[in-house]
Amino acid sequence: MTDLLTLAQRARAAKSAVARLGMNDKTRGLLAIADALEAHERDILDANARDIAHGHEIGLNPGLIDRLTLTPARIKGMADGCREVAALRDPIGEVLWMRTRPNGLRIGAQRVPMGVIGIIYEARPNVTVDAAALCFKAGSACLLRGGKEAIHSSTCLAELMRGALAEEGLPADAINLLEDTSRDSANRMMRLNGYLDVLIPRGGAGLIRAVVENASVPVIETGTGNCHVYVDEHADLKMAKNILVNAKCSRPSVCNAAESLLVHAAVAERFLPLAADGLAAYGVKLHGCERTRAILGSTVVPATEEDWGREYLDFELSVKVVDSLDEAIDHINTYNTGHSESIVTEHYDAAQRFLDEVDAAAVYVNASTRFTDGGEFGFGAEIGISTQKLHARGPMGLEALTTTKYIVYGNGQTR
Amino acid sequence: MTDLLTLAQRARAAKSAVARLGMNDKTRGLLAIADALEAHERDILDANARDIAHGHEIGLNPGLIDRLTLTPARIKGMADGCREVAALRDPIGEVLWMRTRPNGLRIGAQRVPMGVIGIIYEARPNVTVDAAALCFKAGSACLLRGGKEAIHSSTCLAELMRGALAEEGLPADAINLLEDTSRDSANRMMRLNGYLDVLIPRGGAGLIRAVVENASVPVIETGTGNCHVYVDEHADLKMAKNILVNAKCSRPSVCNAAESLLVHAAVAERFLPLAADGLAAYGVKLHGCERTRAILGSTVVPATEEDWGREYLDFELSVKVVDSLDEAIDHINTYNTGHSESIVTEHYDAAQRFLDEVDAAAVYVNASTRFTDGGEFGFGAEIGISTQKLHARGPMGLEALTTTKYIVYGNGQTR
Repeated sequence: MTDLLTLAQRARAAKSAVARLGMNDKTRGLLAIADALEAHERDILDANARDIAHGHEIGLNPGLIDRLTLTPARIKGMADGCREVAALRDPIGEVLWMRTRPNGLRIGAQRVPMGVIGIIYEARPNVTVDAAALCFKAGSACLLRGGKEAIHSSTCLAELMRGALAEEGLPADAINLLEDTSRDSANRMMRLNGYLDVLIPRGGAGLIRAVVENASVPVIETGTGNCHVYVDEHADLKMAKNILVNAKCSRPSVCNAAESLLVHAAVAERFLPLAADGLAAYGVKLHGCERTRAILGSTVVPATEEDWGREYLDFELSVKVVDSLDEAIDHINTYNTGHSESIVTEHYDAAQRFLDEVDAAAVYVNASTRFTDGGEFGFGAEIGISTQKLHARGPMGLEALTTTKYIVYGNGQTR
Repeated sequence: MTDLLTLAQRARAAKSAVARLGMNDKTRGLLAIADALEAHERDILDANARDIAHGHEIGLNPGLIDRLTLTPARIKGMADGCREVAALRDPIGEVLWMRTRPNGLRIGAQRVPMGVIGIIYEARPNVTVDAAALCFKAGSACLLRGGKEAIHSSTCLAELMRGALAEEGLPADAINLLEDTSRDSANRMMRLNGYLDVLIPRGGAGLIRAVVENASVPVIETGTGNCHVYVDEHADLKMAKNILVNAKCSRPSVCNAAESLLVHAAVAERFLPLAADGLAAYGVKLHGCERTRAILGSTVVPATEEDWGREYLDFELSVKVVDSLDEAIDHINTYNTGHSESIVTEHYDAAQRFLDEVDAAAVYVNASTRFTDGGEFGFGAEIGISTQKLHARGPMGLEALTTTKYIVYGNGQTR
C-alpha cells in the first residue's frame, strides 16, 4: 500500500508531463482506458464482489449496497463515459483574450491545467473512473480517495486505468488512488499544501462539511441542495403543479430535487390542494406551516424551524404560505444552500426580481430545479455542482477543472 | 467596540441592498466618500497622529512607521483612488453568455456580487479605503480587519466612509471595520462560514500563511513572489541586463520584483559581469552558485539551498548558472511561488516552451516581471495578486471580486 505522501509526490512529479499532452494523446489514453475496462470486466466484477460481500458483512443498507454494485451494464456505462469525455472539446490552451498595452506588451489570458486535483468521495466505484477521466482530459494529474467500502473495486479500476495509460506510453502517474482509507489519511490529504492545487469533495453533507472545516488546500464545496419552488400569485397553476411534482418526485435523492414549496397566499387555497394531489401519487410526506395545515388538513405534519433548512433527499417536502414575493425571496435567501431555486409566475417583474435577488448557483423561471446538471446545461460532463461562489458555481464541467495564466509577449519592456 | 459576530451579521444583512445598487448609486457613494475624506483631512490626520505616536512608543521600525503615516497628499491620493474606482466600468449584471438548449430553456451566466468579502490586512490605513471602495463598486458588503497599529486611522476612515454613504441614503453597513484587533478575532473571522463568501489576506508571508492554514471560509491567497529572470543562451544580453536590473532594483520591496537570476552556461561568462555591473549601481548583494562565483569572484556569497526559495524583498539576488532551458524550467517550477517569471531570449521555441511549461500566474518573454500589476495589465484597480489557481490568478481587478449565477428562463420545462 503506497502512502499518501509518496502518491502526492508522484502526482506532482507527473503534472508537467500530463499538462503537456495534446488532445490526440489524451483521446488515445481515454479510449484505451475505456477498452481496458470492458476487456477486464471479469476482474472488475471479482473485485467488486469482495466489496459487496464485505458490505453485507458489515450491514450496509440496501441503498449503499446498490451504489457500490457494479454490473456488466454499469461497467459498459463507465467505459462509454470515458469515450464521451474523449469526444469533448479540449479546454486547454485556449486564449480567452489578448490585448496590446500602450507600451507594446501583449498580455493574454490562457486556459491551462490546474496541476494536481484531489477528489475525496464515498463508496461509489464509478466516481473513480469518472473523476480520473475528467481530470486527465483537463490536463491534470489526480489524487483520488474513495470510500473504504469500495476499495477493492476502486483499486482494481485505478490499476486498469494506469495500465492502459502506460501501455499507450502515457504517464500512468496521472492517476493515483489512495488505498489507505483511514480517516487520518483523509485529514492529511486535506492539508497537502504544495501538492494539491484544489480539493473537491463529492458526497454527502457530512463529508463536505469535514473537508470545508479541515482543509488548508483550496476547496470547491459541492453539493447539498435545499432547493425551493415558489408559486407566485400570478402563476399558471397547472404549470406550477407539473414543475413542483417533477422537482420533488422525479429523483428525490439528488441535490437538485426540491425540498421546500412556497406558495403566495393569494393562490394558496387553489394551489395547495392541486399540489397535494400531485404529490400524493408519490406518497410525499408534507411538513406545513399553520396556514398550509388550515388548508390541507391535519395529514400535513407541522413544520418546525428545522424543516425550513432540511435537505430531505426523500419523498418529503416542507410547505409554507407567504404573503409576498419579498417574503419568498427573504425566506429562500435565509434557508437555502445556494443551489437551485425556481419561481413559477406569469408576471414579468416578479420573474426578473426573483432572478436578480435570489442568491443561488442557478435561478429558474418556470422550470424545474432538476435541470441543474452539467449534461442538461450542455457542458457534456460534470465533476459536481459547486455551491460556493469562488472559482466555479453551479454544475462544473471540464472548464471548472482548469485555471488560467497570463502570457506576456514583450520586446524589452521595463517599468 | 462592536464585536465580530454583530459586524458580520450587519454585513450579511446589508448584502442584498448593496447588491441591488445600480452603477449610478455606487458612483454617487464613491464620490461622496472621496469628498468626505478630503473634507475631514484634519480628523484623519489627528487620528493618524495617535497611531504614529503609539508606533514610536512601541518602537516600530521606520519602514512600518512610513506605511502607517498619512499626509494631506496621501489623503488626497486615497480620495482620488475612490474617484478612479467610481469611473471604472461596473462589472455587475453582465451576461457572459446565454444559450438556448434543445428543450427551449434559455440558460445564461450572469456576473453577480460575491455577497460579503472579508479582508485581513496589515497596518496600512490606505488599504481600508482601497478595499472598501473596490468591494462597494463590486456590489458586495465588506468586513475589514486591519493591523492594530493603524486602528485609530482605520476607524476614523471607516466612520467617514460609512457616514458619507448614509448621508447619500446608501447602506452604511456596506462597510464594516473590526475594531477588535486581537489575534483571537482574526482567527474567528477566518471561520465565519455562512457570513463571509470569501476572505482575502493582504500582507506579508506570515499573515497569508496564517490565513491559509486556519481559514475554513474560501480564501484567495495573495502575494509572495519568488520571481525569476532566466537569461537564455540566445538572449540579447543588453536587453537582458536592462530587464534584470529593472526587475530587481526598480522597487525591491514588492512581490513582482525579481529574487533570482538564472543564466544559461553558454552565455554566463559574458552576461554575469554585465549583470553584476548593472546591479552594483544599486548595491545588490549576490548569492551565487559555485559557477557564478567562479566567474564573478568571491564578493558573491555562496548560495545555500534556502536561497533558491527566498523572497528577499531587498537589494539581494540569488544567481545560478544552468545548462539548459529544461534545467531552468525545472528550477523555477521547483522553487517559485507561482507569481511572475521571465525569459529573455531571441529563440522562438525557447520562448514558447517557457510560456507553456513554467507554472506561474504571469509568464513573460523579454519583459520585466514588474508588470504584474492590475494597473499595468489594464484592470484599472487591484485588490491584490493571487498566487493560487482557484477563482483568480495574477492581478485581481474588480471582476475577481465578483461571481456568476446561472439564470434560466423556461416556459414549463420538466425533466
